[in-house]
Amino acid sequence: MPDAADEFDLIARHFRPLAGPGGLDLLDDAALLPPPPGRELVLTVDAIVEGVHFLPNDPPDLVARKLLRVNLSDLAAKAATPLAYLLTISAPRGTSDAWFARFAEGLGQDQQSFQISLLGGDTTSTPGPVSLTVTAIGHVGPGKMVRRSGARAGDGLWVSGTIGDGALGLLAIRGEIADPAGRLADRYRLPQPRLGLVDPSLVRAAMDVSDGLVQDLGHLCRASRVGATIFAERVPRSMSTPEWLVQSLTGGDDYELLMAVGPEQEPTFQAHADRRGIPVTRIGTTDAAPGVRVLDAAGRALSLENRGWRHF
Amino acid sequence: MPDAADEFDLIARHFRPLAGPGGLDLLDDAALLPPPPGRELVLTVDAIVEGVHFLPNDPPDLVARKLLRVNLSDLAAKAATPLAYLLTISAPRGTSDAWFARFAEGLGQDQQSFQISLLGGDTTSTPGPVSLTVTAIGHVGPGKMVRRSGARAGDGLWVSGTIGDGALGLLAIRGEIADPAGRLADRYRLPQPRLGLVDPSLVRAAMDVSDGLVQDLGHLCRASRVGATIFAERVPRSMSTPEWLVQSLTGGDDYELLMAVGPEQEPTFQAHADRRGIPVTRIGTTDAAPGVRVLDAAGRALSLENRGWRHF
Repeated sequence: MPDAADEFDLIARHFRPLAGPGGLDLLDDAALLPPPPGRELVLTVDAIVEGVHFLPNDPPDLVARKLLRVNLSDLAAKAATPLAYLLTISAPRGTSDAWFARFAEGLGQDQQSFQISLLGGDTTSTPGPVSLTVTAIGHVGPGKMVRRSGARAGDGLWVSGTIGDGALGLLAIRGEIADPAGRLADRYRLPQPRLGLVDPSLVRAAMDVSDGLVQDLGHLCRASRVGATIFAERVPRSMSTPEWLVQSLTGGDDYELLMAVGPEQEPTFQAHADRRGIPVTRIGTTDAAPGVRVLDAAGRALSLENRGWRHF
Repeated sequence: MPDAADEFDLIARHFRPLAGPGGLDLLDDAALLPPPPGRELVLTVDAIVEGVHFLPNDPPDLVARKLLRVNLSDLAAKAATPLAYLLTISAPRGTSDAWFARFAEGLGQDQQSFQISLLGGDTTSTPGPVSLTVTAIGHVGPGKMVRRSGARAGDGLWVSGTIGDGALGLLAIRGEIADPAGRLADRYRLPQPRLGLVDPSLVRAAMDVSDGLVQDLGHLCRASRVGATIFAERVPRSMSTPEWLVQSLTGGDDYELLMAVGPEQEPTFQAHADRRGIPVTRIGTTDAAPGVRVLDAAGRALSLENRGWRHF
């Protein structure tokens, strides 16, 4: 087995076994996708870059699974059923065959877990860090995609799981906070897409929390032309000590879902989440006044200088 | 106007105007694509990296157009009609707003030329070179996608345009060969997707020539389980002097089309190409013996050490 991977050979050995029916064994210029009858397609794309979204020493199989999962999380937020994906890998010349092998192993593992297949891709060399892109394709019934823009004033605001663990996980990996069981690091490395949680008959607006809760809530509010008030103490956190509060509200990489639920639907939504085994928490409400207000336990507005992650 | 671009602001100003109906103003986690009724979708993805596929000083509008066109070229090879695309941009922090503005301008220009729209995307920072990915979506009638695998022994092998100009253009940009009118450099910077040339009733197999003619022909032959014999002198070249022959046969970045046409269809195919105003040339035939043979004017086999571009 060569150390430096040969492009066509590595595609044949590691990625061809992952190709689905429309992937044509990755032997063609393009993939063929006969759309599922009577369904609309939902498409999303996310790029992750070594040194920004994952670390050079992260295990390649976990990098692959994170890459898939950040995209599946977007599909989950839109109430879409995942179907397939396309992949690009830009890696330095001399990247080892073993790296590609473990990367493909991670893809294969999550393809099984989420019942998706590889449709096509592109591999190129780069003089820079490893850069990876997945375009994920899902489907919904006609008119059933849940958008960011559907919230109305008075809706309950709900989140899945715990918020802030992604950002804390990165700190833990860097040795800046204690994480004896590695649980926070796992949250950073392997997000859990909350597929099946967003039911279009129960949820009016949804998005995934990837750039920090407060900033992302701002996006949802602007898209829906509402404002929001949330209660910092109600935001479910793994590290509930006050010192990590701001970090949790503004840190990125959670890939939990933020949802607006009409007040009359809230009990049904809670029961639905319970049946799915997905923890959900009501953190506040939407209201008519523009902007996002974060209140502390005493009802005072928290002032957050940096509301979330920005790339530029 | 700030020098360093703000992520959300730059999306709003430069990319939102490019969004098509399913792009939801780029305000959501994902795009919505109701598939064109009665059509199958064709999907392709290509990544281009600064320093590998384009040069740091290349005008950003041309980089954008090349990015779109290398993908449209794949759709053209498959006989697909382009519909829409998704885009990822990884760029260093501090990339100027002017760069994004010109990049978006180039996208807008080619969106008009090719009647496509932006469905969604992702922008991230990178500590490395600019990395760009486009996933392009086209459509064909059921069963009408032209594959690499459809050639049969005895088919005529045809190419569009001239071969080798992409690789020569790169040499010209580097000052290694003369290019007084900048025509070769233009071929490197702005490929011409040959949309409308591949008619599924006339062409049995097709692919675009992006990694070198001889290597790409090898891929088509293996997919079709045939061999091929081509005549070096017949391969249409801009620089027809013997010194650039090998470079033209093996250089990358042409984005012309290579097609296998059944012998009884060749006159009709030639007439079809003429009507489209696309120059096509018959360079050889497929045959039953595996492998690709390149013959010189005296009928001797040329030995090509390096048959094309490899990334790893």
